[in-house]
Amino acid sequence: MHIEIQRKSETSLSKQIFQSIVDHIRSGLLPQGSQLPSVRELSKELEVSFVTVVKAYKELEKENLVTSIQGKGTFVNIEESDIRKTEKDEPAFDWQLSLQDYVPRAQFSRFHHVPGEIQLSSSMIDPGLLPNRYLEQEIHKMLSENPRILSQYSEIQGDYKLRVAMSQYLKQFEVSTTPDNLLITNGSQQGLDLVARTFIGPGDVVVMESPTYPGAIDIFRGRGATILTVPIDKEGMKVDILQNLCDKYKPKIIYTIPTFHNPTGTVMSHKRRRQLLEIAKSIQCIIVEDDPWCEIYFDKKPPTPIKSMDYYGHVIYLKGLSKTLAPSCRIGILSASGSIFNRLLAAKSNADLGSPLLTQKSLLPFVTSKKMIEHMKKLRTALKVRRDLVLDLLSHYAPEGISWILPIGGLNIWLSLPTWVDTNQLLIEAKKNNITFLPGSACYPVVQENHHMRLSFSYMNEQQLQQGIRTLCNILNSEIPSKKNNNNTPYF
Amino acid sequence: MHIEIQRKSETSLSKQIFQSIVDHIRSGLLPQGSQLPSVRELSKELEVSFVTVVKAYKELEKENLVTSIQGKGTFVNIEESDIRKTEKDEPAFDWQLSLQDYVPRAQFSRFHHVPGEIQLSSSMIDPGLLPNRYLEQEIHKMLSENPRILSQYSEIQGDYKLRVAMSQYLKQFEVSTTPDNLLITNGSQQGLDLVARTFIGPGDVVVMESPTYPGAIDIFRGRGATILTVPIDKEGMKVDILQNLCDKYKPKIIYTIPTFHNPTGTVMSHKRRRQLLEIAKSIQCIIVEDDPWCEIYFDKKPPTPIKSMDYYGHVIYLKGLSKTLAPSCRIGILSASGSIFNRLLAAKSNADLGSPLLTQKSLLPFVTSKKMIEHMKKLRTALKVRRDLVLDLLSHYAPEGISWILPIGGLNIWLSLPTWVDTNQLLIEAKKNNITFLPGSACYPVVQENHHMRLSFSYMNEQQLQQGIRTLCNILNSEIPSKKNNNNTPYF
Repeated sequence: MHIEIQRKSETSLSKQIFQSIVDHIRSGLLPQGSQLPSVRELSKELEVSFVTVVKAYKELEKENLVTSIQGKGTFVNIEESDIRKTEKDEPAFDWQLSLQDYVPRAQFSRFHHVPGEIQLSSSMIDPGLLPNRYLEQEIHKMLSENPRILSQYSEIQGDYKLRVAMSQYLKQFEVSTTPDNLLITNGSQQGLDLVARTFIGPGDVVVMESPTYPGAIDIFRGRGATILTVPIDKEGMKVDILQNLCDKYKPKIIYTIPTFHNPTGTVMSHKRRRQLLEIAKSIQCIIVEDDPWCEIYFDKKPPTPIKSMDYYGHVIYLKGLSKTLAPSCRIGILSASGSIFNRLLAAKSNADLGSPLLTQKSLLPFVTSKKMIEHMKKLRTALKVRRDLVLDLLSHYAPEGISWILPIGGLNIWLSLPTWVDTNQLLIEAKKNNITFLPGSACYPVVQENHHMRLSFSYMNEQQLQQGIRTLCNILNSEIPSKKNNNNTPYF
Repeated sequence: MHIEIQRKSETSLSKQIFQSIVDHIRSGLLPQGSQLPSVRELSKELEVSFVTVVKAYKELEKENLVTSIQGKGTFVNIEESDIRKTEKDEPAFDWQLSLQDYVPRAQFSRFHHVPGEIQLSSSMIDPGLLPNRYLEQEIHKMLSENPRILSQYSEIQGDYKLRVAMSQYLKQFEVSTTPDNLLITNGSQQGLDLVARTFIGPGDVVVMESPTYPGAIDIFRGRGATILTVPIDKEGMKVDILQNLCDKYKPKIIYTIPTFHNPTGTVMSHKRRRQLLEIAKSIQCIIVEDDPWCEIYFDKKPPTPIKSMDYYGHVIYLKGLSKTLAPSCRIGILSASGSIFNRLLAAKSNADLGSPLLTQKSLLPFVTSKKMIEHMKKLRTALKVRRDLVLDLLSHYAPEGISWILPIGGLNIWLSLPTWVDTNQLLIEAKKNNITFLPGSACYPVVQENHHMRLSFSYMNEQQLQQGIRTLCNILNSEIPSKKNNNNTPYF
């Protein structure tokens, strides 16, 4: 376990230690029964006072994540290692425990693509809504005409024809880019990872919305970033708070999901987008604009991406096609300019020498046809029906004290429960009923809030949503009153 | 440009600065005409003396990589940005130049998959030798039976059935692993990158063979590793020298390509493999065993991998299927044990949430059939013919003073020219004749030697090899004598 302390962070040292250990546990990197280092050892290693470590360990105990046994030590007492059971019983591998690593957090993978009957945790789209049969026929045509595609590498930057097609596709969002400024990635996740490994090192400042996409937190934490957070309201990231942060610290990257924000579903107003870009220009920093599903609007079209106003190369724009078209192909697109682009391309070459050609060529016929536009239209219609259904069910069956943000696009609904409810605990109950959701705590980069949850309405069909939301509401109804007496105090 | 200085390295500071700038230039990260920081600026930034920087800059001038203009500064004067022309003429993006990055080197991509008539630079296999038509039919069968595969994510660890098949496949090399201990990666390149990002941070010590695979150098340099090198002889890495290094420094990783070493083609003896593992056990470090083509032997089978003797989880074993089966699918396999495996899996989830399912499912039928073994047999036969042809041509047409190591497997021949020849310069001539090869300088992690080249005999057919090697020998014959008078002094 490698704990990195950010001395210039606004977060206290004990909170940082607490958070780091929570992240290790929730990422499955410290399995049940693992012994934490002694207070003496850790305070020496991190060059912090005894009191600081003791305070962090006390908080861990309070959250029931660890147990201290007098004279023996402090042990992880929660089974969170959903990623994979560690072979911790194999004594032959004990020497490995002293190997320091640089992976402080990998929480998102716990909730990504979890098998389960009623899967509300992962923002995936119902396979029944995706153009599998059409893609299959196009793949067959392409490969039977030219099987040698299988023996070719892609350009590192990505297949040229796919880049041409995607630069055309992006025009509808007023994002003007050339094929030369596009990089094909293994989903947006890799795009984001490339940005972090290229521009962020220990102590560099990254600003994120809070809450935000957990996979992004994992990535920036893995680079040792000092993360500062900005809350959001119904117009998106609060730029006045951002301005104050930027005056005080000089962030290198501002990460935002302005359109149908993940997890809350909010949309940043056009005015705020413009302000955000002005701030980035004034402090010469990078905006990473993550845009996984701007096509999925239920009402009117959202404002055009920040990238559409970017004339000085401040915005790195990420668009995934994994979710909305073919998860099996894992294709994402990154658009950037100038030497920023050039350096990201170098990072991509080091990371994997380019994405597979097969997956890129597989999507090409669809992306270049009118079917792409029609498909997105179909998704809007179908997902609006599901959203409406879930809202309707929640209105009828959810207990009092639960609120949500009406999503006007995207794949998710963000629910807020009474502050004393811990959705990590609720998830254990839900899983017993074969239901999964994303607990809100995973979405907070620094100070966690435990009383939210994200429900994805895009993967399950209407019948499954009926059953799932009703069962979930039953759990909420039975769990919430029973917990009222515990009256947990808020975090820290 | 971010230069990282390793104060505990055995390499002098001026050499480190020299090397870092060479790497930036040769990676296309400092395009022609770029101005280097002034001696004053750089000495201040790196906290080294004026003299140190001056010495490094003088060496750069001597190598004709930069030009100093009195009163103006020092400028890059070599066009090496083959990756991509930087849009350096776009003044709108000038602000980006002050953004520090963490990509010190990405040389390998310049030589990977370079289009060219006679392509001797990249260890790829002639598409005519790969089972494209068979794979195409299997892909068609799989997708027409189950098009929903296209809408599914892979497990992050990789498709379970492919892991079962690969653990079976590895048994022929006496590598005993379970599907649980295998991770599917985007080629071996990503496997290696995952290892580096998980276990290596600034100043951690990595031992590599010298020369070695350039892509590995790019990766470890990108993590700020202190790289120590061990020379090789005809039995592979010289373990006596390794032992001395390990006594003095404590490396965290020893990276080796024991079988048909890249670029030299040598094979580490069984005895040395055993000794290497003993050393790793005694200092509790990781061995990364990169094994891209042990199937391609021309004489007798090579010794079994070091991984076959690994009972304590010291070896991370990497096996690529990209080259030998289907480059378009970019599939590699990583085998490791214990918490090392668990942490690599967490890194994979952060990097890209898992490899595409389509590419994994595409290879499954082939890998599980007997065709896989037959295919490797065919490759051995076909590539042996090409190797013999190239050796024959070299014997007949190469000028005196050129020697090579007889490759008894793999895809490459390593040529050594007289020490005063710079193969980077030769490459410029060769390209004019539509021939590419890998200049040896890319293969040295620390102190470069410029008088070697790697020729890959696997991608071109016999007719192309005939033409290419003869033309190359003509160039060698005409270039080498003409350079004799320059009498360049050796490096440093």
